[in-house]
Amino acid sequence: MSDTPATPRRRGAARTEELLRVTLDLAAEAGYAGLSIEAVGRRAGVGKHTIYRRWPSKAALLLDALSHVWTRDLDYRDTGDVRRDLREQFLRSGFALSSPPIGPIYRAVIAEAQADSVLRATLHERFLATVEQSTLDRITRAQHTGELTADANLEFAAEVLCGTLYYRSLLSTRPIDEAAIDGLLDMFMAAYGTTDQGLSGH
Amino acid sequence: MSDTPATPRRRGAARTEELLRVTLDLAAEAGYAGLSIEAVGRRAGVGKHTIYRRWPSKAALLLDALSHVWTRDLDYRDTGDVRRDLREQFLRSGFALSSPPIGPIYRAVIAEAQADSVLRATLHERFLATVEQSTLDRITRAQHTGELTADANLEFAAEVLCGTLYYRSLLSTRPIDEAAIDGLLDMFMAAYGTTDQGLSGH
Repeated sequence: MSDTPATPRRRGAARTEELLRVTLDLAAEAGYAGLSIEAVGRRAGVGKHTIYRRWPSKAALLLDALSHVWTRDLDYRDTGDVRRDLREQFLRSGFALSSPPIGPIYRAVIAEAQADSVLRATLHERFLATVEQSTLDRITRAQHTGELTADANLEFAAEVLCGTLYYRSLLSTRPIDEAAIDGLLDMFMAAYGTTDQGLSGH
Repeated sequence: MSDTPATPRRRGAARTEELLRVTLDLAAEAGYAGLSIEAVGRRAGVGKHTIYRRWPSKAALLLDALSHVWTRDLDYRDTGDVRRDLREQFLRSGFALSSPPIGPIYRAVIAEAQADSVLRATLHERFLATVEQSTLDRITRAQHTGELTADANLEFAAEVLCGTLYYRSLLSTRPIDEAAIDGLLDMFMAAYGTTDQGLSGH
């Protein structure tokens, strides 16, 4: 940042990490409605204007905090078996989406975004675009190694993969369980897998 | 109903239709938060206990009202070309989801359901299960006529089809446009279509 040219990058990163941790702690304690940038600033010992310089709203701050935790915990492995790596990650994501404290907080942001298209755009840009991109990266690698067909439009496939799990989580009371994930992966591999397993292996 | 054995069924159906219409009108005027079973009863000239006998909550009433409109307006055609019929229906559903007054009312129910698992179950049972079933019926017919492979697990495919459109509608500001629908249908037909078109036709 131009106003703190002498601050070592590592110290800035540590301060950001502390701020995001405090944000998640407060959200877990007070819920989304009870969260405020002022309260985060007080607990972290940072002026609220400093926070506002970087995050325009508490939603943006919270989404970065969620993203910070989830991109660390929930990144895709690359074992060379795309179906296995997607499956493992979807099981973890499904668990995270449905487990307190993060699950309910995230759900509250999604709820609020339904009446607020700016927040909906923020939600997508600050969080879901990252999730989709990480999925796209993993399946693109599988395309390069020949596990997926060369002409498949994977950008949209990444959205289908993420979207189906969110649908089940947000719009039903059915769990994101192994059967659901296997059903989704059956369809994905039947569409774009280069072996026969996707067409018959379920 | 046991308390009105002499009422002709047609009159009962007309009264139900009137009640559901009044529910949608009121929701469009006052929003989800301003809707109440008392207000619906007053405008329709029906006692609130009569309404509560059939609908346990305003959410259940509103979901039946939405379902009544949408299953009439948005049922799948059967032209013998499953991709074409799905595409036409998804375009209409995408428009309905994003258009006032129904779109925002429905979105408000979805938002409220995020903090209320009973409402989420009601939402799925009273509305989305119908949408998924109608999709499943259409693609099952296509399986019977040989347009889709005989061994495909279509039950889960119906959820993937519905879920992807909802994800885009609820969690981004991207429209449910022709490109999105074609991307989804490319994947669906590549997975389960019996001709080669799905594998290369995009």
